[in-house]
Formats: sequence, structure tokens, C-alpha cells
Amino acid sequence: MNAPVSMPSVLSIRPEAAEAPESGIVEVANYGRGREGLIPLWVGEGDLSTPGFICEAATRALAAGETFYTWQRGIPDLRQALARYHERLYGKPSDPERFFITIGGMHAAQIAVRMVAGAGDEVVIPTPAWPNFSGAITVAGARAVAAPMTADERGWQLDLDRLKGAVTSRTRALVVNSPANPTGWTASLDELSAILALARSRGLWIVADEIYARFAYEPALMVDGRAPSFRDVMEPEDRILFVQTFSKNWAMTGWRIGWIEATPALGQVIENLIQYSTSGVPVPHQRAAIAALVEGESFVAHQIARARRGREIVVGGLAATGKVELPAPPGAFYAFLKVKGVADSRRLAMRLVDEANVGLAPGTAFGEGGQGYLRLCFARKAEDLEETVRRLAPVLRAI
Amino acid sequence: MNAPVSMPSVLSIRPEAAEAPESGIVEVANYGRGREGLIPLWVGEGDLSTPGFICEAATRALAAGETFYTWQRGIPDLRQALARYHERLYGKPSDPERFFITIGGMHAAQIAVRMVAGAGDEVVIPTPAWPNFSGAITVAGARAVAAPMTADERGWQLDLDRLKGAVTSRTRALVVNSPANPTGWTASLDELSAILALARSRGLWIVADEIYARFAYEPALMVDGRAPSFRDVMEPEDRILFVQTFSKNWAMTGWRIGWIEATPALGQVIENLIQYSTSGVPVPHQRAAIAALVEGESFVAHQIARARRGREIVVGGLAATGKVELPAPPGAFYAFLKVKGVADSRRLAMRLVDEANVGLAPGTAFGEGGQGYLRLCFARKAEDLEETVRRLAPVLRAI
Repeated sequence: MNAPVSMPSVLSIRPEAAEAPESGIVEVANYGRGREGLIPLWVGEGDLSTPGFICEAATRALAAGETFYTWQRGIPDLRQALARYHERLYGKPSDPERFFITIGGMHAAQIAVRMVAGAGDEVVIPTPAWPNFSGAITVAGARAVAAPMTADERGWQLDLDRLKGAVTSRTRALVVNSPANPTGWTASLDELSAILALARSRGLWIVADEIYARFAYEPALMVDGRAPSFRDVMEPEDRILFVQTFSKNWAMTGWRIGWIEATPALGQVIENLIQYSTSGVPVPHQRAAIAALVEGESFVAHQIARARRGREIVVGGLAATGKVELPAPPGAFYAFLKVKGVADSRRLAMRLVDEANVGLAPGTAFGEGGQGYLRLCFARKAEDLEETVRRLAPVLRAI
Repeated sequence: MNAPVSMPSVLSIRPEAAEAPESGIVEVANYGRGREGLIPLWVGEGDLSTPGFICEAATRALAAGETFYTWQRGIPDLRQALARYHERLYGKPSDPERFFITIGGMHAAQIAVRMVAGAGDEVVIPTPAWPNFSGAITVAGARAVAAPMTADERGWQLDLDRLKGAVTSRTRALVVNSPANPTGWTASLDELSAILALARSRGLWIVADEIYARFAYEPALMVDGRAPSFRDVMEPEDRILFVQTFSKNWAMTGWRIGWIEATPALGQVIENLIQYSTSGVPVPHQRAAIAALVEGESFVAHQIARARRGREIVVGGLAATGKVELPAPPGAFYAFLKVKGVADSRRLAMRLVDEANVGLAPGTAFGEGGQGYLRLCFARKAEDLEETVRRLAPVLRAI
């Protein structure tokens, strides 16, 4: 985490706003943005722009004049398409009333956090973690409590006792991200059941971030070709809020469209929170999202195959330098690598921009346990990743 | 204001979320949505879809693959274009560093409120007012305090003593919307100076909503063809946050793109609040916004001329029924009409959907002082507004 912003005290703004830290990812990305020939692997997006059939659905909607305000929960056709998609992916009946369209996964997270936590509350997050959850928790006036995971030669492991130990009387929710950004940790069904049992016994909400569910690489850990999900172990009355996005599966990061899946009993509350934050999602984007769900399976398969190949190149290539610790991640599309002998990964990330012309995110951006690590996104064409390894190797070897 | 949502207590969500009221506008719009032949004048948008030259800028950006994450503050070209636009409109030098692109004016308001108010704080708002400010204040954990305006045969007047009287030791900000939604009240330069003096003397922020600045109809009240602005009376060190949108001038309600104008000293804080709520605005939309600013003046003039004609039709036509009180509003594009002998304007709005096939917003949606009123948006073609008067007249006369 970076330090809160300092500013003239005469401006006297609220601590929740002033204390929201600068994203350590954005900081480095801003440092290197626009450098000639840089390979940008710092943010969580691939190199493919959105497929034409998705863009064209938006273009058609614009041309048809769909430029007006719309349903705050999302257009019925998209909520319906999401229910069908979930039925295919998870093999269980679903319901359009469970889905609420948001301005990206971040907005889904903001709304989920706003529902479950505020002043005086704590939310527990296994770390290292995507920093934006703790950012949203801070902005909501609550406190993000880290439950550090452990890393060994097999990879990252959830320490369930540490998770239990982080829960206090003030805890209102657990954030569970599996497959995880940045570590690739992927919960087994048994782990999901254990987390759910903890949440039930302590009366906690679970905010479930399963946006990388389809990027899973270890058959022994998988269910029907995807990562295990809370949907595989939950009961309808369990208090779970799923936050989701079109960004990753369908290469739509820049569109800002995602969704919340929740019990329909929360429908009016979620509608109100959408109304008072963004007032809905552009209809052309919702039409594009329908195209993604209905016609996008071969593109998703292509993305997964590329990520699988990217993972091989990066894990193998960096291991060969002898300077990094990097067990192959079982899920998501990041290599979270520990550089031997490096104490300051933020400085190293800046140095790799300058000396290797490669953009990686510093582990310090991901909270407790991230120091000494770098995150590399391997959702990219093989040539770029091979070139990345070639550029990084000499710099790493010289450390 | 509508009642907070009731739900099973087992869901135990935060009061800030549960207490955000359902929008009274959306409630009626949902009631009537999809009715054959209904003339929808309930929400703040006109009947024109976004002009082709704006849509085409977005389409070109999509086709060019601009579908990735971008600058959290907005792309430099758009911030530059906004500075130039402000220089033209307000006749003073500006600076791109003052502008921060958001997901619509609502998102700008959410961020402005989050910076200045939280638990234990109060924000004063002259009412009747656009309900979404008090919604955002509630969600932020603060309290919206109404300072009711007064209505007489000349129209709505700000009661400055009442505004002063509403300020307590807990007040952190004043929300000032001029020209106002729904009343059309438009502050004079003297009134803006008096409000600013109050804010300075009590150490308050002003959240300035001047989104209808170009929809002004009374030459005696106007400055350079627009409504007076805090920019005309402020000093650089004054604590004013301007919230703005592309929705109204350029018929872009459905796009969800707006901006905050603020001191550059708040830049990092605003960037962080964007990061942890929506993570930026789609680049194609930002390209469209540039087209609007650079090529959109004749379209804006056309919209203003239509609204001016719409105002004449509605004010004259409804006055002729003898059943409404409706002084001509000096700004914005709403008729806020009082129906004689009506106690429940929410019920009346539903009745007008059923009996006149016209959608109006109930005055109760706009807080204290709104009971008995209805809001009608006249940013629409003359034929529709003439038909509206024809449909409403017999129902109003029968009351």
C-alpha cells in the first residue's frame, strides 16, 4: 500500500477520501506509459482488443439511437442472457432477477462493500490481493484486515487458521478471490466449504470474486473445466455477493461493464446504490455484453489457450534465470514472482521499465506479503512473452 | 422521499445502503415504462438521440481497438478540450489539470460528496431538489438537510436566511444547483456572491451543479448568453467542486459521461476515488465527448431553441387549464407545476400515466416542498408538447 495523499490542510476533506491510497499499479503504469516499445504486463488485461462481433453490437445500438437512460438493474435481455450463461457454466438453474449490471467489476465491488461494511466494521482479505478491494473498503469508512497467505515451493496456500484468527467481533465480511489475483491461488472445493462454514458460524458475508474462474490450469483442481465456485457448495440462503466483469473473458477491460450476482431480496437496495453512484450502464455496452455471452465461447477458449501457453513461457523462462521463485500458478493469468535478493519491489518495477522496457506491477501494490514480488500478466501473445523473458533475464541476473 | 427498503433482517446490510431511498422518479418511470404511445416527460432527458457525429467518434475509436484501460483522470485530449470549452463559455483562462472525467454527472456528485461529507456530517440543500444528491449523501453516511425555497407568483426564490439557518456546526457543504432541477430557479450574481460569502464565513465547501447553465431564458438574469456561474464571482482559493455532465447539452444521457472540475491540488484524491469506484471511463466515450465539445455548438443551440419553444407551449398551455400554478421557469428545462387541489402528487403521477398516457415525475421525489407538484421535462419537440397539453388538460380540469 502506498501512503495516503498529502495536501493543503485548508482543503479539509474527509479521511475516507484522503486515506484511499494511490494504486501502486497505476503509479508504475503512469511512470512508464507511452514509452516506445515497452511491453506492458502491469495491469490485468491482455493484448487483444475486443473482438469485432462484440464491438459491432455496440455500434449497431448506437446507430439505432439507443442513447437514453435505461433500467438501473440492467436491460432485461442481458439479465436473461447472464442467467443462461450461469446455467451453462455452473450446471444449475439460475434466475435473471439475481443479476445487476454495473460499471465494471470495480463498481460491483464498490456496491458489494457498501452494502456490508462501513464505519467501525472490518473486512478480512487474504493477501497479497488485488488492491482495489481494500481501497473500496477504506472509502466506505471500514477497515481492511489482511489475512496473509503463505508461499512455499508448491505455491501459495490459504492459511485457514490465520483467516479465522483475523475475524473479530467487528468483522462483517470475507473477501474471497479464487482463482486469485495476483497469486493464482485457486481454492479447492474443500477450502471453499471451510470458508463458507466459517462465514456461517460467524454470521459474515462473503464477497466472492471468481472473475478468473475460467482461467484454470490444473485438472485435479477443476470442476467441469473451470475453477471450483462457491456455487458448488452454497445453499440459496447463504450470504454471498458475487462480483463479476466482462473485462477478462471477453477482452473488454476498457468498456467498464460487469455485474453483481446476489439474492433478489437485495434487488431494490442494489438498484438504489446503482442509481446514486452511476445511474445505469449504457445500453450499447449491454448489447455488446449479450453478444459476448451468446457468441463469445470460441473467443474465450482462444484466450484461455493463449494464457496457458503464456504461463508455460513465463514460468519456464524465468525459472531458467535462477533468480526468481515462481511455482506455476494453478489459476488466473498472472505470474507472481519473487526476485531473490530484492527488498524493494516498487523500485525494481521502475528499474525494469527503464532497463528492460518491460512493465510489471510491484508486489507492494498488493498488500501484506507482497514485498519482494512482481506481478506479470501473461494473457498475451507468445512472441511478446518470449521477448519479455529475453529482456528480463539479463537485468535479473545482474541483481 | 420514499421509504427505505424493507427486507429480511437476516440479510443485515449497512444502514447507509438500506436507507438510500428508491428514486421517486424511477418508481413512476418503471410503473409506466413500455406503455404504447406514452409521452415520457418524467426523466431529465429530451427526445433527441445523440447526434451522429458524436456516435461516429465512438464508433471509430471502437473500430480502432481503443478498448483497453486508460488514464483514471481522463485522456489528456479530453481534459484539454474541456479547458478550452470553459475558456470560451466563461471568458477566463482554464487548465486541463482542473478536469476529471467521470461516469456521468451522478458519479461526479458521488465523488464530490464522498470528499466532503461522511458519518456525523450534514450537507445543506435548497429544496425541492434533484433527489440524487441526498441519495449520495445518505450512502456516504452523512445527513442531507433541506433548506426549503419559497414559491410565489413570480416563481421560486432562494430564502437566504433559511439557508443560513440550516447551517450548523456539523455542516460541511452546501449543494447549489442553478439553474435548478426541478424548479428552474436561477441564481443571480448577487445571490451567488451571498452564498459564497456564507460558505467562506462558515468554512463550507460548495458543490456546484451548473449543468443547465446554457438553458437560460431571461436576459436580465444572464451573463454572456448563459446563467450566472460561481466562476463569475469566485477566487481561485474558494472551495468549490463543480459537478458536470455531457448528458443534457449534447443529448448523451445514456452514455454516462461527465466530469468534476476542482482544484488540481485534489487531483490524486479524485484519481483514487475514480480508481476505487469505476476505474475510469471508456476511451470511445471520451472521443465522443471531444467531438461534442469541438463540433457540438450548433447542436447545443438547436437544443436550447427547442427547449425555449417547449417552455412556451407548456407554460401557456397548462396555464390555460386554470388548474395549475406555473410561473415561467427562468432556467433548466422543466416545468414544475402545482396542481390546485391535489394533495398526493405521487398518486397523481400514476393516474396521469393511466388516464392521459403522459409520464410526469411526482414532486414528492424532490424532497421537502415538492408535495402537490409535478415535474415535466420540456426538452422535446413541439408536437409532443402540444399533444401533452391536449392530453393533460381534460384530466386536470376533472380534478
